[in-house]
Amino acid sequence: MDNVKPISAAQLKFLKKLDQKKFREESAKFIVEGPHPVTELLSSDWKVDYILVRKDAYEEGRLSAISSSAKKRGIQVQMAAKREFDAVADTVTSQGVLAVVHTNKGRSTPDWRAGAKKLTIVGLNTISDPGNLGTIIRTCAWFGVDYLLLDGGSVDVFNPKVVRASMGALFHLTVIVDADLKKSIADAKLHGVIVYSTTLKGGILLDSCTFDNRSMFLLGNEARGVEEKLHAASDIALMIPRFGAGESLNVAVACGIVLQRATASFPK
Amino acid sequence: MDNVKPISAAQLKFLKKLDQKKFREESAKFIVEGPHPVTELLSSDWKVDYILVRKDAYEEGRLSAISSSAKKRGIQVQMAAKREFDAVADTVTSQGVLAVVHTNKGRSTPDWRAGAKKLTIVGLNTISDPGNLGTIIRTCAWFGVDYLLLDGGSVDVFNPKVVRASMGALFHLTVIVDADLKKSIADAKLHGVIVYSTTLKGGILLDSCTFDNRSMFLLGNEARGVEEKLHAASDIALMIPRFGAGESLNVAVACGIVLQRATASFPK
Repeated sequence: MDNVKPISAAQLKFLKKLDQKKFREESAKFIVEGPHPVTELLSSDWKVDYILVRKDAYEEGRLSAISSSAKKRGIQVQMAAKREFDAVADTVTSQGVLAVVHTNKGRSTPDWRAGAKKLTIVGLNTISDPGNLGTIIRTCAWFGVDYLLLDGGSVDVFNPKVVRASMGALFHLTVIVDADLKKSIADAKLHGVIVYSTTLKGGILLDSCTFDNRSMFLLGNEARGVEEKLHAASDIALMIPRFGAGESLNVAVACGIVLQRATASFPK
Repeated sequence: MDNVKPISAAQLKFLKKLDQKKFREESAKFIVEGPHPVTELLSSDWKVDYILVRKDAYEEGRLSAISSSAKKRGIQVQMAAKREFDAVADTVTSQGVLAVVHTNKGRSTPDWRAGAKKLTIVGLNTISDPGNLGTIIRTCAWFGVDYLLLDGGSVDVFNPKVVRASMGALFHLTVIVDADLKKSIADAKLHGVIVYSTTLKGGILLDSCTFDNRSMFLLGNEARGVEEKLHAASDIALMIPRFGAGESLNVAVACGIVLQRATASFPK
């Protein structure tokens, strides 16, 4: 039980309130659940408040790797009884461990001058499904996206379902929240970044397109796509050709397909 | 209220039980919710038992297109009060309409001789997340996949969350359930279909690969990937190159990326 402090009632009350967006914003904190996301978190430079372990899981030794890497980073480990822990955990997938983390809203705009050789930006326009946003974050991390711009109409990036679906990738990506996409498109053009807007019809076919090594990709709302004013302001409308009877593609799947093509065809 | 019959208590009881996999299997029926999926259903050849509308939504005229296309196909429209309807609907996205549909387990194996020019098959090995399976179905329909093989370890294709995430694409795809993937791989090889297994490491890079016009793609469980015995039995291990710090890709995103490459590079 070395250095592991019991959680207080006041702390538990605080944790419960973190499921509300308003309270996450006020406190500038959010919760990360589960051994894998917490491990990813601890390997990143995000600021961790403390780790909370569930007594039984801790005592069975299932969290020893996490506890020891927390200790190495000087992060306090606290403990809760099963009943207390379950009351604040969002899911069964937490497996007896969660972290309280400071939201990281450091940047408000990309460093447009960075990445002369390669700068990849994804801009999201009113993405509403938390699972989709989490999966997009995971996909962006895989393909080495430098900045993910999230407009104010999109779901909160610190929503527990988003954090869960991102599988820890959130901590390896620079996400800019409340982004003004109209302004970002103008800034991109000013700095020689080509802006591609994705569409279901009327664009250039994905495989006919060559991609610049400084590129920004816009993806739109699940039902409505990219807003007309943003679409019109883009350089190139991009379309993933359809081969079957399907009506549309999931936005995270579309994001993956576009990023794979783009990264594969960047000038080496 | 022309020809619209009120729903009976016995029918409501039956509908409630359809949220259990066991009962879906026994009755060979399942529920499809929401205007868009029901419209897609009515444009397919799946056998519909009846359409259930919520009184207020029907009377406001919001379901007139669906009711009239049901009538054209000789499908009974029945009506429930709001309270009754809400008790059987799985989601708020139902918007006052659902359909009771016969499960379609027609084929037990692909027609391997079909599609001499093009035969695309996707095989799923113990996919466990309903949202992922639904998104894969939607992706397969977009890319014109001919058969989706689902092994017995995967989530039930008639699970309401799968049906919802498929966005109606389920009705435009031939899904073979309880598929024996080991046997399917052997059959594929026998009929000149190249079998590609997807992996996170140690495969041929996606963009170095040329695809045959008769291809089968294996995708594996969210945590464990494709089972070793299936992987070993495949012709080619296929890998989506990573460019960033990400750890893995969502399986539906991986499916979309592979199918896009494959369809784009099929011999014309």
